[in-house]
Amino acid sequence: MANEECIKYVSIIGSTGYVGAELVRGFAGHPFFRFRHLTSKTFAGQPYSEIYPEFRGIVDTVCEDIAYEDVAKDSDLVITALPHGVSAKIVVDLLKAGTKVIDHSGDFRYKDLATYEKSYKLTHPNPDLLKDAVYGLPEIYRDKLKTANLVANPGCYPTCSLIALAPFLKAHLIEEDSIIIDATSGVSGAGRKADLAYAFCETDEAFKPYGAVGHRHTTEISEQCSFLAGKNSGDIKVTFTPHLAPFKRGMLASIYVKPSKAFTDVSSEKINAIYEEFYKDETFVRVLPGKTLPDVKAVAGSNYIDVNGVYDPDTGIIKLFSAQDNLGKGAALQAIQAANVMFGLPETAGLKNIVRGI
Amino acid sequence: MANEECIKYVSIIGSTGYVGAELVRGFAGHPFFRFRHLTSKTFAGQPYSEIYPEFRGIVDTVCEDIAYEDVAKDSDLVITALPHGVSAKIVVDLLKAGTKVIDHSGDFRYKDLATYEKSYKLTHPNPDLLKDAVYGLPEIYRDKLKTANLVANPGCYPTCSLIALAPFLKAHLIEEDSIIIDATSGVSGAGRKADLAYAFCETDEAFKPYGAVGHRHTTEISEQCSFLAGKNSGDIKVTFTPHLAPFKRGMLASIYVKPSKAFTDVSSEKINAIYEEFYKDETFVRVLPGKTLPDVKAVAGSNYIDVNGVYDPDTGIIKLFSAQDNLGKGAALQAIQAANVMFGLPETAGLKNIVRGI
Amino acid sequence: MANEECIKYVSIIGSTGYVGAELVRGFAGHPFFRFRHLTSKTFAGQPYSEIYPEFRGIVDTVCEDIAYEDVAKDSDLVITALPHGVSAKIVVDLLKAGTKVIDHSGDFRYKDLATYEKSYKLTHPNPDLLKDAVYGLPEIYRDKLKTANLVANPGCYPTCSLIALAPFLKAHLIEEDSIIIDATSGVSGAGRKADLAYAFCETDEAFKPYGAVGHRHTTEISEQCSFLAGKNSGDIKVTFTPHLAPFKRGMLASIYVKPSKAFTDVSSEKINAIYEEFYKDETFVRVLPGKTLPDVKAVAGSNYIDVNGVYDPDTGIIKLFSAQDNLGKGAALQAIQAANVMFGLPETAGLKNIVRGI
Amino acid sequence: MANEECIKYVSIIGSTGYVGAELVRGFAGHPFFRFRHLTSKTFAGQPYSEIYPEFRGIVDTVCEDIAYEDVAKDSDLVITALPHGVSAKIVVDLLKAGTKVIDHSGDFRYKDLATYEKSYKLTHPNPDLLKDAVYGLPEIYRDKLKTANLVANPGCYPTCSLIALAPFLKAHLIEEDSIIIDATSGVSGAGRKADLAYAFCETDEAFKPYGAVGHRHTTEISEQCSFLAGKNSGDIKVTFTPHLAPFKRGMLASIYVKPSKAFTDVSSEKINAIYEEFYKDETFVRVLPGKTLPDVKAVAGSNYIDVNGVYDPDTGIIKLFSAQDNLGKGAALQAIQAANVMFGLPETAGLKNIVRGI
Repeated sequence: MANEECIKYVSIIGSTGYVGAELVRGFAGHPFFRFRHLTSKTFAGQPYSEIYPEFRGIVDTVCEDIAYEDVAKDSDLVITALPHGVSAKIVVDLLKAGTKVIDHSGDFRYKDLATYEKSYKLTHPNPDLLKDAVYGLPEIYRDKLKTANLVANPGCYPTCSLIALAPFLKAHLIEEDSIIIDATSGVSGAGRKADLAYAFCETDEAFKPYGAVGHRHTTEISEQCSFLAGKNSGDIKVTFTPHLAPFKRGMLASIYVKPSKAFTDVSSEKINAIYEEFYKDETFVRVLPGKTLPDVKAVAGSNYIDVNGVYDPDTGIIKLFSAQDNLGKGAALQAIQAANVMFGLPETAGLKNIVRGI
Repeated sequence: MANEECIKYVSIIGSTGYVGAELVRGFAGHPFFRFRHLTSKTFAGQPYSEIYPEFRGIVDTVCEDIAYEDVAKDSDLVITALPHGVSAKIVVDLLKAGTKVIDHSGDFRYKDLATYEKSYKLTHPNPDLLKDAVYGLPEIYRDKLKTANLVANPGCYPTCSLIALAPFLKAHLIEEDSIIIDATSGVSGAGRKADLAYAFCETDEAFKPYGAVGHRHTTEISEQCSFLAGKNSGDIKVTFTPHLAPFKRGMLASIYVKPSKAFTDVSSEKINAIYEEFYKDETFVRVLPGKTLPDVKAVAGSNYIDVNGVYDPDTGIIKLFSAQDNLGKGAALQAIQAANVMFGLPETAGLKNIVRGI
Repeated sequence: MANEECIKYVSIIGSTGYVGAELVRGFAGHPFFRFRHLTSKTFAGQPYSEIYPEFRGIVDTVCEDIAYEDVAKDSDLVITALPHGVSAKIVVDLLKAGTKVIDHSGDFRYKDLATYEKSYKLTHPNPDLLKDAVYGLPEIYRDKLKTANLVANPGCYPTCSLIALAPFLKAHLIEEDSIIIDATSGVSGAGRKADLAYAFCETDEAFKPYGAVGHRHTTEISEQCSFLAGKNSGDIKVTFTPHLAPFKRGMLASIYVKPSKAFTDVSSEKINAIYEEFYKDETFVRVLPGKTLPDVKAVAGSNYIDVNGVYDPDTGIIKLFSAQDNLGKGAALQAIQAANVMFGLPETAGLKNIVRGI
Repeated sequence: MANEECIKYVSIIGSTGYVGAELVRGFAGHPFFRFRHLTSKTFAGQPYSEIYPEFRGIVDTVCEDIAYEDVAKDSDLVITALPHGVSAKIVVDLLKAGTKVIDHSGDFRYKDLATYEKSYKLTHPNPDLLKDAVYGLPEIYRDKLKTANLVANPGCYPTCSLIALAPFLKAHLIEEDSIIIDATSGVSGAGRKADLAYAFCETDEAFKPYGAVGHRHTTEISEQCSFLAGKNSGDIKVTFTPHLAPFKRGMLASIYVKPSKAFTDVSSEKINAIYEEFYKDETFVRVLPGKTLPDVKAVAGSNYIDVNGVYDPDTGIIKLFSAQDNLGKGAALQAIQAANVMFGLPETAGLKNIVRGI
C-alpha cells in the first residue's frame, strides 16, 4: 500500500464510455491514485457500478455532472475522454484551474495546425496549446512527459504503428515513401453507443475494411513518422487501411516497408535484433523471440504491445507486426503509463501485472 | 508491498492447463505469495511465458518436472491441478512432506466414500483423508479452512449452485426434493486440450446440453446440499443439467425450487432480502439489487459471484440465479481465496480489484 | 422449375428486420413463390440488396412504402413482420382485400382475449379475428391451416417448447402443473435495431437470463399447452425463463417435467420412442437417436427442430430438449412451411435442403 | 426437378472434412447431381448425418472406405478432398477409370514442376499430369474447363487474390513487382481436426498473422499472376501474409499495388469501372458500387466473391479488396461451379440462391 502522502487524485470527464471504463479499471487497482470525480452527463447520479456491473463493490463512486472547473480544482490529474472538438474547447479551462490534463481526443495530437484542421474538419479554438501538448507515447517522449501539463494521448492505430516503425525510422533503415499499414481493430474501438453497425448480429462472423481513404489516424501517423525520421510534419506520407474484426479488444498492425540502402544485410534476424536493442529498457514493448509473431490475445487487457518483424527475400519487403489492446496500450492504460511518468511515479505502477488470462 | 517475512511460497502441480494459468495470473499479482515451482510434464524446461505468451515479462519461471516431494519440501502451499484419480494418489505424499495442499480434482470433495467411488468409477487409495479434507467454499467452511492442511477446491458447477442455494437450505425455506439446476458453462471448463469437440468451428455459434444424466457434479452438489440442510450425505437429490455455450469463461446457474411451508409470504423482495442478510459480510458474493439478474460478463476474470432470485406467483416457483467465472470463483481464484484464509492473510488479498473490464 | 401457373405472389410488410430478411432468404429459393412487394418505411426506394448486401444479384427488389391495400391487391399472400399492436389494426384490411395473411406478431396467437390483452397490455381492435386465426404450428394444426386465411405465426420460444411437450401433453403423460422451461436464444431474437443492449461488446462473452417473470411468451405457451391437453386456455400454467447467449441464431429449450401416473415404466428409451412415434411422419421434427441431445448448431439456418429427452431416475424428473433456429423454425421458415400448407403445395417445398453447414 | 437422364453421379473422397461437408451441402441441393460414394477412412460405416447432424434427414448416405477404382467406376465425377502428396498418387488411377476429377489439394495447381516441388517439399509422382490439369478458376479458365478431365481447384487465398488482381494484371495497369497481399481467413480454413491451436479458447478473441514468409499459397498466386500478365511462371513475385481471425467462414484480401504508367488518370471511380467491365458477365463476382467495401459477412455460405478498390492520391497506392467464403468460392462451391462447366450444365445451377442470411 502506498503512503497516504504519495496519493494523487484523478478525475475522468466522460467516464462511462469504453475508454473511461478501462481508465476506471486501471486506476481502481493503482497503488498511487484515487478517484476524485467521475463525470457523465447521461448517467449523473448513478453509481458507476450500475453502468458497469463488474465494478460493483469495487468502484461504486456516483457519477457527477459538474462544471469543469469544479472537476479540476481538487484533482491532481484530469483525464478527458470526450469527442474531438469538445476537448479543444474545455482543456484550456482545466489547465487554468491548475490541474494536469491527459486528453484522449485528436485535438492536441498534432503539431501542424493545418493538418489537424483538415483531418478533423474543424477550426481549433485554442491552437496555441498545440506546441505545449506532449504526444503521450512514453517510449518516444518520456522526457517531455515528465514536465508536461497537457498530454495528448495517442490514437490507437498510431500507437500500434509507431511502436513498430520507430526503430527503423529513427535509424533511417527504411524507404520513407514505402510505408503501408494494414491494421485491424476489435469492436470496442467504435466506442459505447447504440449503433446498428456495431450490433452483435452485424459484427459477429464479419470482417471488413473501412475508411480506406482518409481515415484520420493516417495524418497522425504520418506526422509522427516524419518527426521520428527527423523531418517536418507531412514530409512522410503513409498508406493506411483499418479493418473491423469480431473481437472486443485488441489491435494488430501488419506493416510493409522497403529497406533503405542504409539497411545492409537485411534479414529477419537483424530486424529482430534492431527491435531488441531499441526496446531493451522498455517494460511494455515486448520483442517476440525468433520468428514468433504477435497475437492480440496475448496483449488483451494489458498495457503491453508485442512486436516482431520478418524479411521476405523474394520480394525485398520487410514485414513488421505489432499487437496491442486498443483500449489498453492503445488508449486508457497508456494514459496511466503517461500519468505515472508525469507524476514521477514508477512507470509500471498499477500496470505490470494486469493481463487478461485465457 | 508486503513485508518480506510475510511472504509464502506456492507451487502448482500441473500448472499449464487453464486452471493452472488462472492460478498463475492470480498469484502473479498477489502481495503475499511468490512462485516456487510450476510443474509440467509436457512443457518441462520451457518458460511459462512461452506456453502463455501473455505472461512474457511477468511470469517467465521455467516449468519443471520434478518429484512431488521436491515440490513440497520448499513450498508453503502446493496446489494440484491434476486429473481425478491422480490427485488421490499423490496428495498424501505432499502432506507428509509438511506442506499445505489445495487440490482441484474431485478426489477429496466428498465425505461419503461410496458416493465418490460410484461417481468417479474409482477406488480411492487414501480414503482416510476424506474426513480431514475441508471443502474449500470459504463462505460456508471459513472456520475449518483456517486450520486445514488439505483443501478440496469445489467444482465449478457446485460452487455456483451452492452459493445460490445455501441461504434457503440452511433456513429450510425450500422443499428439498424440488431442486432443479439448469447451468451453462463457457468452453474453458473443458480444459486445455486438443479435442475436436472444443474446436472453434465446433463450438462457435453452438449451444447444447451435455451429460444430462449422471454428470459427476450432481452428487457433489447433492452431498453439500444435504450438509447445508443439516442432513446426511445423499439425503437430498438434485436434478442437474449442464450446457456448453460459446464464450471462453463464465458460468450461470438458473435454479428452480418450491418454497417450503416455512417460507411464508414468499416474494421476489423477500428472496432478495434473504440473500442480502446471508451474504452481508461477504466480499465476493454480490447480491444484485431489485430484480437485476446476473450476467456472466460482469464476473468474468474475477472472484466475484453475483446472485439474485425472483418468485413466480403464477406457478409458485422460486427462480434463483448465480453467475461466476468458471475459472475464477469456480476454480483458481476461489483457491486463492481459500489460501488467504488458510494462511491468515486478508481474505481479499490479491483478488479484490481483478475484473476483466469490457 | 415450377410451372408458371402454379406460381404464387408473396409480399412482406416490414421486410427489412431480421425476420423479414429470413423470409426473403427462404422465398428467394422457393420453387413456387415470387416476390410482389417488399415494404419498408425506413428503406423505401432502396434495393433490398443495399440493406442486406448478401442478396446482391439475388434479391434486388426495390423496397416500397405503399398503402396496405395496394400491397394486398396483387398478392396471393401477405406476410406481416410488424410489432404487436400494429398488426392488430391492419390485418383486417389485408384480409378484406382478399389476400391470405401470415402475421408474425403476438396479435392473433391467442384464443383468449383477456390473456392477450393482459400479456400485451393492449386493447385488441379486432378481437373477432382471434377465433378465425389459425395458430401456425403445422405439426399440430395442419388441417386448419389448409383452409386458413389468417395464420398467427407462433412465437419462437412457444414453437420450441410446444414441439418438445406436445407428445406428452396430448397423451397425458406428464403432470400438468410441473412444467419448467429454461430456454436460451441467440441475439437475432432481439431484432434489427440500434440498441446498446445488443451491441457486440455488450453481448459477446456474455450470458444472462432476462424477463424472468412475466415474459409474454409464457402465456402463449400456457394457452397452447392447455389446448394440447384438451383443456381450456389458462388451465395449465408453465414456469418459463428465457436467456440471451452470444450466438446469432438458434434457440434451445431445456424442459423439466414430472411423469404422470399414466406414464408407467418411464425411461429414457420410452421417452425417445414416444417422440419417434408422435413425429414419425414429420419432416422437420427430427428425433435424435439414443441419448443424443440437440445442439443449436445442427439446426441453424434451417426449418428443422431437433428433439430428444432423458429420464433422471434419481429425482424422477423427465428432461426434454429441443433446438431450432429462432429465425428459422422459430419464425420465418416455419411461416413458409405454413404457407406451403395454406396453398396446397408440398409442405417441404423450398425448405428441405436449407442447412447452414459448418 | 431435373430430367432423370441429365443426372450426374458425384463421389467425394475424403468427404468428412470441412471442405467435404461444404461439397455435401452444395451438391445436396443441386438439381443435376446425385451422390454415389462418400468416402472416409475414419467414419466408414457411419451415416454422414451422424458426423454432421445438420444433415439428418437430408444426407444420410453411409460413408464408405472402398478402393479408389471402385469409387471411380460408377461415378461421373470424383472430387478428392485429400492432403497434398496423397492426391498426386491416386488421381492418375481415378482418371484411368474413366471419371472426371476435381482435386482440392495443391498437387495439380502448378504448371512449373520445380515451383511445386519446392513449395510442397515433395517429389511429384505424376508430373505429366500437370500440363493437362486445368486451374479451376472459371472466370479465367472457363473454356479449358469445358473439356477438362482433371481440374485443380484453386487455393482459397489464390482465388481471393487473383479475382481481385486479374483485371489489372491482364491490362498491365499495375507495376508487377509492387503486389502486396494482406489476407485474413476464418478458422475453418485450418480444417477439421483435433488441434489445440484451433480450440475455441485459443482462437476466440484472438487475431494474428501466420506463415509470414513462405506460405505455400505465395507461389501459387505468383505463378497465376505471371500467367495473367502473359509471362512465365515465376516472373512475378508477390508479397503475401495470411492472418487468422475469430470467425468460422470467410476470407478477405486487402491488396496494395502501384499503378503502372499505362494506368492514366487513376482514380477510385476508374478502378471500380475496370472491375465492372471485366466482370460484367460474371454471376459470382460482384463488383460493389461506389466506395462500398467488401465484408466477409455478405458472402458467407455462398459462391459469391465481392470486390472493389480505391486509390489513395496521397501515396499513389491502389487498394483492392475482395471477400469470399473460404469454403465457398474459396473451395467447395467453386468446385461445384467448375463441375457445372465441365458437364455443360448452367454454371449457376445449385449455387445462385445459396446465401447464409443474418
